[in-house]
Amino acid sequence: MKNIKYYIGIDIGGTNIKTGVIDENGAIISEHSIPTGAHRQQEEVLNDIILSVKASIHGANVNPEDIAGAGMGTPGMIDIEKGIVIYNNNLGWRNFAVSSEMSKAIGMKVRLENDADAAALGEVIAGSAKGAKSAMIITLGTGVGSGYVVNGKIVQGCEFGHMVIDYGGRECTCGRKGCFESYCSATGLINMTKELISKNPDSILSLTAKKEGTVSGRTVFDAAVKGDNEASELIDKYISYLSCGLVNIINGLQPEVISLGGGIAKQGERLLTPLRDKVYMEIYEGIKFPKIVACTLGYKAGLIGAAMSAREI
Amino acid sequence: MKNIKYYIGIDIGGTNIKTGVIDENGAIISEHSIPTGAHRQQEEVLNDIILSVKASIHGANVNPEDIAGAGMGTPGMIDIEKGIVIYNNNLGWRNFAVSSEMSKAIGMKVRLENDADAAALGEVIAGSAKGAKSAMIITLGTGVGSGYVVNGKIVQGCEFGHMVIDYGGRECTCGRKGCFESYCSATGLINMTKELISKNPDSILSLTAKKEGTVSGRTVFDAAVKGDNEASELIDKYISYLSCGLVNIINGLQPEVISLGGGIAKQGERLLTPLRDKVYMEIYEGIKFPKIVACTLGYKAGLIGAAMSAREI
Repeated sequence: MKNIKYYIGIDIGGTNIKTGVIDENGAIISEHSIPTGAHRQQEEVLNDIILSVKASIHGANVNPEDIAGAGMGTPGMIDIEKGIVIYNNNLGWRNFAVSSEMSKAIGMKVRLENDADAAALGEVIAGSAKGAKSAMIITLGTGVGSGYVVNGKIVQGCEFGHMVIDYGGRECTCGRKGCFESYCSATGLINMTKELISKNPDSILSLTAKKEGTVSGRTVFDAAVKGDNEASELIDKYISYLSCGLVNIINGLQPEVISLGGGIAKQGERLLTPLRDKVYMEIYEGIKFPKIVACTLGYKAGLIGAAMSAREI
Repeated sequence: MKNIKYYIGIDIGGTNIKTGVIDENGAIISEHSIPTGAHRQQEEVLNDIILSVKASIHGANVNPEDIAGAGMGTPGMIDIEKGIVIYNNNLGWRNFAVSSEMSKAIGMKVRLENDADAAALGEVIAGSAKGAKSAMIITLGTGVGSGYVVNGKIVQGCEFGHMVIDYGGRECTCGRKGCFESYCSATGLINMTKELISKNPDSILSLTAKKEGTVSGRTVFDAAVKGDNEASELIDKYISYLSCGLVNIINGLQPEVISLGGGIAKQGERLLTPLRDKVYMEIYEGIKFPKIVACTLGYKAGLIGAAMSAREI
């Protein structure tokens, strides 16, 4: 009988570093987490990652010989082929050959991967896009992230957050105007919500924001439920922009599945049902309507995907 | 010594059908052309294609055993796996199993391919993007077409003409508003040129159009050379839109080369030099600036690419 292979997953976040042993089908066998302590020297952080990996291996209770490799997901600029973090602002890493350091310490090959790409791979292997031949994972968070997986492999460097959908429109952090991200990130929606509040400080929306103590991506959805018509209109507008960006991607690449993650995707069908209607109206004739769903794995996507990216070694 | 392999290329255009024998490196050994006669029955057209292929083979003077397959590029909706033209409005073909018919007639496997994708592959194998690991070929013609080739293979169904770059903008034939195509196709530029002429019927631009007898994609470039400032401004605007769409694609997919084809690309450096400057200003930090060039193969791209797509069989 052929032994099942296992892979180590490492997901380096700004707050926590998660590690785990994942089987070749994407099931988590064991996991472990440590605070990142991003202010520390890189050697200290690295030592903690190594300890966490060893704890995961210990907890998995599998034959170490069946562990075929490790994958490490990290934000920032990386050189995948060389296994180098070029820069990571959260951790203060610069030109850090983390793959070879990790590799020496844990005695196996360590693949470096972009964290958003790793999360996309996780969703394709074990989550919302399981089994899809091609899937685009779009994260509606602080920014708009994207990860594209075709035939079980990450398409490197696929990033649609900075696609202009409104020529000369809202200013984006990247210097362009009218980027998908400047409308459809949680930040974009929060900015548009704040603009609406400042126009009408006595609205249900304004009172909702006061009660919640802050304006978040949820605020406008909460106010709409309470009967604020302007809030409902802003949601419509948000969904129109989101549809616009997604249809661009669908017309362009024809993914079989689009999975939405990040804070805004937590609205579930309140977002997805009207979104599907708008997308359906707009896609190019003859193009197959993709499955549009919410991501299901949460933080586990990054862990599973990092591990599974090691299959590429 | 290993024999060189050859492939048959067939490019089905609305006016002419071109066939040829192409070697495995993309060099044309022989070629032949017939009028399409699109009004005729599909059997008549098919018979002519078969005769043309046989003439190409005859002209190539190679050992028929060294011909490894044939590829056929066609516009319209196709099913590549089944080798069926689902519909082709020019030819009036509906659910026509052209691959198996051709295959029976010429005694080898025949692969069907989208004609724009085939042309993109041709440019990568033997033209403007020769040797590029990844190349996006954008055709600025009646519409905006795109073909994406990664590691020598066509990425199926890649089409960025109907990517909205200006939310709520110019109406597009596809039903959306503000598509890349509605600004950057030759048709888009002609429409904008006509609008400018109607605003100022005594301008150098208007006189140029009268002299040329029609408004083409060239007209505004010709008038700018003669000193029409508004024409120069329209060219700037056109290049800004073009840069906008290209930067979206560059940020999204990071192709190594972008090759521009179609009528507008004939402007050469008058278009490319200012375009590169604008793209350079706008691309996302850290993304490698791609090579931006004009296509070099003309109609031969479709013939070579169709033949080379047969390598996938």
